[in-house]
Amino acid sequence: MIDERMYQLGSEPNAIRALFAYGLARKAEIGAEKVFDFSLGNPSIPAPGAVREAVLDLMADPAGTVHGYTPAQGDLGVRSTLAESINRRFGMEAQATNLYLTAGAAASLSISLRALASPGSEFIVVAPYFPEYRVWIEEAGCVCVEVPARKSDFQLDLAAIEAAVNNQTKGVIINSPNNPVGVVYPADSLRGLAEVLQAKQRLYGHAITVICDEPYREIVYDGLDVPYLPALYDNSIVCYSYSKSLSLPGERIGYIYVSERMDEADRVYTAVCGAGRALGFVCAPALFQQVIKRCVDTPADVGAYALNRAALTSGLAALGFEFIEPQGAFYLWVKALEPSAEAFAERAKAHELLLVPSTSFGCDGWVRIGYCVSPETIKASMPAFAALAAEYRKA
Amino acid sequence: MIDERMYQLGSEPNAIRALFAYGLARKAEIGAEKVFDFSLGNPSIPAPGAVREAVLDLMADPAGTVHGYTPAQGDLGVRSTLAESINRRFGMEAQATNLYLTAGAAASLSISLRALASPGSEFIVVAPYFPEYRVWIEEAGCVCVEVPARKSDFQLDLAAIEAAVNNQTKGVIINSPNNPVGVVYPADSLRGLAEVLQAKQRLYGHAITVICDEPYREIVYDGLDVPYLPALYDNSIVCYSYSKSLSLPGERIGYIYVSERMDEADRVYTAVCGAGRALGFVCAPALFQQVIKRCVDTPADVGAYALNRAALTSGLAALGFEFIEPQGAFYLWVKALEPSAEAFAERAKAHELLLVPSTSFGCDGWVRIGYCVSPETIKASMPAFAALAAEYRKA
Repeated sequence: MIDERMYQLGSEPNAIRALFAYGLARKAEIGAEKVFDFSLGNPSIPAPGAVREAVLDLMADPAGTVHGYTPAQGDLGVRSTLAESINRRFGMEAQATNLYLTAGAAASLSISLRALASPGSEFIVVAPYFPEYRVWIEEAGCVCVEVPARKSDFQLDLAAIEAAVNNQTKGVIINSPNNPVGVVYPADSLRGLAEVLQAKQRLYGHAITVICDEPYREIVYDGLDVPYLPALYDNSIVCYSYSKSLSLPGERIGYIYVSERMDEADRVYTAVCGAGRALGFVCAPALFQQVIKRCVDTPADVGAYALNRAALTSGLAALGFEFIEPQGAFYLWVKALEPSAEAFAERAKAHELLLVPSTSFGCDGWVRIGYCVSPETIKASMPAFAALAAEYRKA
Repeated sequence: MIDERMYQLGSEPNAIRALFAYGLARKAEIGAEKVFDFSLGNPSIPAPGAVREAVLDLMADPAGTVHGYTPAQGDLGVRSTLAESINRRFGMEAQATNLYLTAGAAASLSISLRALASPGSEFIVVAPYFPEYRVWIEEAGCVCVEVPARKSDFQLDLAAIEAAVNNQTKGVIINSPNNPVGVVYPADSLRGLAEVLQAKQRLYGHAITVICDEPYREIVYDGLDVPYLPALYDNSIVCYSYSKSLSLPGERIGYIYVSERMDEADRVYTAVCGAGRALGFVCAPALFQQVIKRCVDTPADVGAYALNRAALTSGLAALGFEFIEPQGAFYLWVKALEPSAEAFAERAKAHELLLVPSTSFGCDGWVRIGYCVSPETIKASMPAFAALAAEYRKA
């Protein structure tokens, strides 16, 4: 009676959501302060005051036209403002007609993949990777090809990517700052990626598109620069979201930027419009379209996450844990104390520590700690981490 | 480089949107008051005051948690409130676990179709019909089968539906109050439909689901009752939206109700969850989830549309136009004054009357007039309708 693949996707929610649900139940059972839930990427800091001011100001319009349909691509004035911001920040020549507003990064990705897809073509993802990439790639009728990141530092392994590209390769998804690892890919690495893909485009005689998944662009530490791939590689599409930078994950607002430098940029943009239509997205939520226009230059509140990062990394380093120092996003990638990430995460659970095993992201031996939590949670969790480490020392 | 079908969908926006875009350009050219734009279904009345009150109240929460992720199915409290409302109004036994909040009716339909689809299976639509039905049915890998409504009154032609059902039939989309015609299907007609489908289910040994597309449920005239199909036929899914009833089309908020009486209701619901995930819908917009909870009993402002209906129908009747008296929604279905709807709509355009030709809805010889406009537009348009009619009398 139903589509079995849809049933499978519905009955096996991703491991992150499942752990989050376990955490909610466990908190109800033993008290919220006793469960150290590091499972989700739900920003712990509230949306900046500028968001509230924008909403209140927009709601003051007695005509209430702010709730009306916008064009499917999004309000023209909003898109113009975003294009100007991209040009000012990254030296591009974007116009409103290169931007398509979406219901967040998930919609940006599913629409972009559907627009580019041809049955059986391949998209490369760099493992560890956000597990929904595979779902959307397969829903678009394509093959998800996992290429491991470098073992030492989880940076791009250009030789491995080069070896994975073939005549079927339609694109590569790049996520920097990276979820789950927290690394930022430096400019020389992205330049190297551009060279590899340019050579492959010449070899196979067709475009290979890089889809840049960038919800964490504004969440970086120590003033680090996140290079803008469309400035380095022409065939780039940026999938952006305000979920993390403005703490609006539930409002579903973001955009697709089809670089004006792409081969057949206008045709790609048109296919993006068609894919949004086919998947049932009518327009991005109208009120929040106007909110992001007004908040286009509102900085993300990185300070709170920087404090959490410092507390967590110093605490875990003192306990002897190995991890990748995060340069961006709000995740800490910690080496499991045994080969199996799932076994380790299970033992952590016994200490009320909810850590996502790396198998959810396509590799073994690590866990992800989402530190978009309260500072109190981090502080209170340290004895649990200590007990967990002690347990392994005894063994 | 791109998916050709997505390119086609993007480059040929539906005729309604194209006419709307023409209208915007024409208004800029000759002045807004000189163009009589009846193209879109964008509610002309603002959202009720209760919506603004709800938004302001929700924004007053200093924690700002209202913008966070909700479960993919939607906030549990919101779903419980909606289930109670359905039970109170229609005598069902819905629970929160039968409801899945969506980004509006388009998302409700595309997700439901994707959940039920199997490659090559068929969905029946009653022509004239909302043209995006075909887009979503085909995107789900299925075949769109058009069954004409009764010629005399555009009610359901049960014999024609019966003849169209075969072993491949997965479902039927029913839209009442109807866009574009404005009719409401009475209980005896829906009972007849239920009997036809029950017999076919027995014959073929599998479920045939009715998808009830109900964005216009609250927009009815003269106190007419709109029968609730799930109370008459077990295998029913309701796709609802607050776009029209609360004048919130741009905010994208609605729901899917998988009737608890369906065969394998739990499995269907799980497949709906999977389809939402696969298409890239993470959760319905969070702020407006809470808004609809608070506005669940807010009545739609039908009065303004009723006045428009009276002005339009009396004006056009006096000019000798034939039309179907609308019982609901805010569309008037008018007989073209020549066999070709498109030729008629083109001649109307010369009088600055923007009417959607019925060919967009899968039949010829009629036009749709969307009267969700200002009363002034209707009044000012009458000389143009008179001139159009006179032109045909002369010919």
